[in-house]
Amino acid sequence: MAPAAQTPDPAAPEPVAIDLVNHTGVLDRATCVELLESTPIGRIGFQVDGAPMVLPVNFAWTEDTIVFRTLEGMKLAAAADQQAVCFEVDRWDESARTGWSVVVTGVAREVTEWAEREILERIGLVPWAREEWRTMWVRVEPDVISGRVLR
Amino acid sequence: MAPAAQTPDPAAPEPVAIDLVNHTGVLDRATCVELLESTPIGRIGFQVDGAPMVLPVNFAWTEDTIVFRTLEGMKLAAAADQQAVCFEVDRWDESARTGWSVVVTGVAREVTEWAEREILERIGLVPWAREEWRTMWVRVEPDVISGRVLR
Repeated sequence: MAPAAQTPDPAAPEPVAIDLVNHTGVLDRATCVELLESTPIGRIGFQVDGAPMVLPVNFAWTEDTIVFRTLEGMKLAAAADQQAVCFEVDRWDESARTGWSVVVTGVAREVTEWAEREILERIGLVPWAREEWRTMWVRVEPDVISGRVLR
Repeated sequence: MAPAAQTPDPAAPEPVAIDLVNHTGVLDRATCVELLESTPIGRIGFQVDGAPMVLPVNFAWTEDTIVFRTLEGMKLAAAADQQAVCFEVDRWDESARTGWSVVVTGVAREVTEWAEREILERIGLVPWAREEWRTMWVRVEPDVISGRVLR
């Protein structure tokens, strides 16, 4: 899960290749996972009535998946309906014009099994917003993980 | 367009209402627009082959629209095909667990008219990544603008 430490420096990740079209560094999977582990806020892209929606969410990376809590019945709950989603984390230094981003595509589902929920309740993910009603757990199983760094 | 100044403080925007379900502050349109004007990086959510994609982009807010430059033929170019998109900006303070986000839904289109492009070339939006090939301008006309603050 996300530690108390600040998100890694925008210029920190070491690329393993250079994309000569975009002129950006390409991050390997291990680096992408480190960034996912150490970043508390990401944005989930999903569909609501066929139109794209992007919302920020505080999340944890656990068991090679993205997990977060949300409120039943809210827009974000739509993401849990076994649908394809995209999850993005990034960090930028505006003055240096450097930054990195990690993009994960996968399928979201609601965690309904008691045993699976019990494990998630213990990972220490406390929603930044009011906690007591955020009873719905959503898990995103990654399909593709990609990362880029601009520096 | 985005000024040189840093993005506003995560706890700064003044809410005009409190969402009692989410326990978040609701921002009015004027505040959302100020945040869009002063934030250089946002994330665009769009569809690629029917699946959601979210990518960061440096952008400007001009003439009540979101504009950015991209490369012909890249994934992001798909967003310009007159499709419904979602654009999100945010800022967070990890230690204080405060932050704000603005979400814009609208329709994206490529700017192809010479006169319209000429105006955009003069607003001073320089892509953070390699500039010379980012010849495609995309404009998002907002439909709904909403903002929230957590503090």
